[in-house]
Amino acid sequence: MSQKDQNAAYILQLFKMQTLSQLRASYHNFANLNTFEQAPIALYEPVNYIMNLGGKQIRPLLTLLATQMFKEDIAPALPAAFVAELFHNFSLVHDDIMDVAPLRRGKQTVHEKYDVNTGILSGDVMLIHCYNKLIKSYDGALAIQLVDIFNKVAIEVCEGQQYDINFETQDTVTISEYIDMIEKKTAALLGGALQMGAVIGGASSEDALLLDDFGRKIGIAFQLQDDILDTFGDPEKFGKKVGGDILQNKKTYLVARSFEKADMHTEQALKSLFNQTDILEADKIDKVRTIFEGLDIQNEATQLLNDYYRQAMVSLEKVNVASDRKILLKSISDELMQREK
Amino acid sequence: MSQKDQNAAYILQLFKMQTLSQLRASYHNFANLNTFEQAPIALYEPVNYIMNLGGKQIRPLLTLLATQMFKEDIAPALPAAFVAELFHNFSLVHDDIMDVAPLRRGKQTVHEKYDVNTGILSGDVMLIHCYNKLIKSYDGALAIQLVDIFNKVAIEVCEGQQYDINFETQDTVTISEYIDMIEKKTAALLGGALQMGAVIGGASSEDALLLDDFGRKIGIAFQLQDDILDTFGDPEKFGKKVGGDILQNKKTYLVARSFEKADMHTEQALKSLFNQTDILEADKIDKVRTIFEGLDIQNEATQLLNDYYRQAMVSLEKVNVASDRKILLKSISDELMQREK
Repeated sequence: MSQKDQNAAYILQLFKMQTLSQLRASYHNFANLNTFEQAPIALYEPVNYIMNLGGKQIRPLLTLLATQMFKEDIAPALPAAFVAELFHNFSLVHDDIMDVAPLRRGKQTVHEKYDVNTGILSGDVMLIHCYNKLIKSYDGALAIQLVDIFNKVAIEVCEGQQYDINFETQDTVTISEYIDMIEKKTAALLGGALQMGAVIGGASSEDALLLDDFGRKIGIAFQLQDDILDTFGDPEKFGKKVGGDILQNKKTYLVARSFEKADMHTEQALKSLFNQTDILEADKIDKVRTIFEGLDIQNEATQLLNDYYRQAMVSLEKVNVASDRKILLKSISDELMQREK
Repeated sequence: MSQKDQNAAYILQLFKMQTLSQLRASYHNFANLNTFEQAPIALYEPVNYIMNLGGKQIRPLLTLLATQMFKEDIAPALPAAFVAELFHNFSLVHDDIMDVAPLRRGKQTVHEKYDVNTGILSGDVMLIHCYNKLIKSYDGALAIQLVDIFNKVAIEVCEGQQYDINFETQDTVTISEYIDMIEKKTAALLGGALQMGAVIGGASSEDALLLDDFGRKIGIAFQLQDDILDTFGDPEKFGKKVGGDILQNKKTYLVARSFEKADMHTEQALKSLFNQTDILEADKIDKVRTIFEGLDIQNEATQLLNDYYRQAMVSLEKVNVASDRKILLKSISDELMQREK
């Protein structure tokens, strides 16, 4: 055990806090007790399938970590943690249909393994069970507060997905439009998972909002990283098809920034690549990647993600609890960005 | 004005109750003030499109009527009424994708007018806005009670739709399986719309459940009628493609009862028609219809729907308010079944 890990273990013991792996185990126990065993099987089997595909299960951990910052007993946060993961998986199922994505976490997507109609309907019932779990697990004012946070996030996620779709047929996208889109589509749920956990832990509304902001900033950093990896990542490690964003003409940060930086000639080259249909997939990926490289876009994206990461840490610092209570949120943030480094 | 209408008008005045057309007007005002004008337009325009396709808007009326049975002021029921209609339309948007239905209420379905992805995503956001409207419109315990009723219904609707899909590839379906499916898919929401209205009106839980049961029975009767019309209806009046159920091999009551009644020869004929792909659509519809006619299935279906209608009225009678307060629920039930007569 390194000195750093020893210090962390000591602090956790001092504050009677669970380690990341203890929290993960608590969550997995809870998730295993909450699989969907009811009829009709054809509706619920795909739900269990996607919920068991693995993934890092960052969102439920964030909920538990936020609760633990404010109180010892994290058990009350488990249903909300489960809801954060269930909602995330709902959005993956529907998004994968829209994106015609064959793989998710290196395995078949739900609509590939079953069919599109199953993906639509099983996704719908997952969304409904999110609300059901919140209402059945929490009393009165707390339930309403949680549903309220959840609603805001859920609406943002749909709106973000719509902007993402819009971007595919838009000629250009500004960087601020792009950041707004990923905040809604990806980052809002990280913020919401933390905010729910904070509220369950009895945090002040200021602290709950600071954690929301922390989650959003981390989420934006995470998505910028995902954009980089989708184009420049290692196919083995990425778990999705590398180059998928380019083939779908996704207007990621890489594209938005390229349009800002490119000269007329390069801009035209990029635009015509987007509109070209008689080109081999591998060639299109290669040519777009070469343009990004010429413009040093990967480095700029990395700088921007580091900026958001730093802003996230500033919000976390402001949360009104002992700094030591924040160590796990810091280390999971590191872990989240790990694949980049 | 007929004597019957005059009597009804007198009773309504006596109880300070609004007429059906006054309630409809109140609902329309509310709905018009609650259209979705926010960005992104591509997400919300389809929501306004489907919400404005017309339709009978039975579900919101049921909510208002249930409230009015217990108290004079129906204004508090308007958001729940809106939610009942919004949820209904959400389910239509997603079901129409799954059924590859080109028309809804005689107009293009959402996925036809826009595209499938829009149908999925706009449907999702409609579902989320149902919860948002409930939580923002009602306080504390009432909000939770309403979300609880709504959740139960929403889960049933998804499960019912799944059974309906399962039936397409099942060889046979029993009548009880069929009735269970339509109760979940169609009738549960009518029951839930009434139950929400009753709770808002301050009804006892017994009365709220009686109205739920009334709605479910009426709903089953209504769906049986829909099955009949889908096969035997007038294309002009029906608003959907007549024969659609047959072409999709839907195991409606007509089919379930045919399998019970048919001799071996007829059963085989029906089964092979389901499996046949090299047949003109019009021929398939004709041949299946001829089998139904030979077995007198239309009459039996009509008898069964009248049975459910009577059972609905029995539950309505038991609701513990003056009989005169029930006249509008009776007349809207009549209206609902009108197209049959």
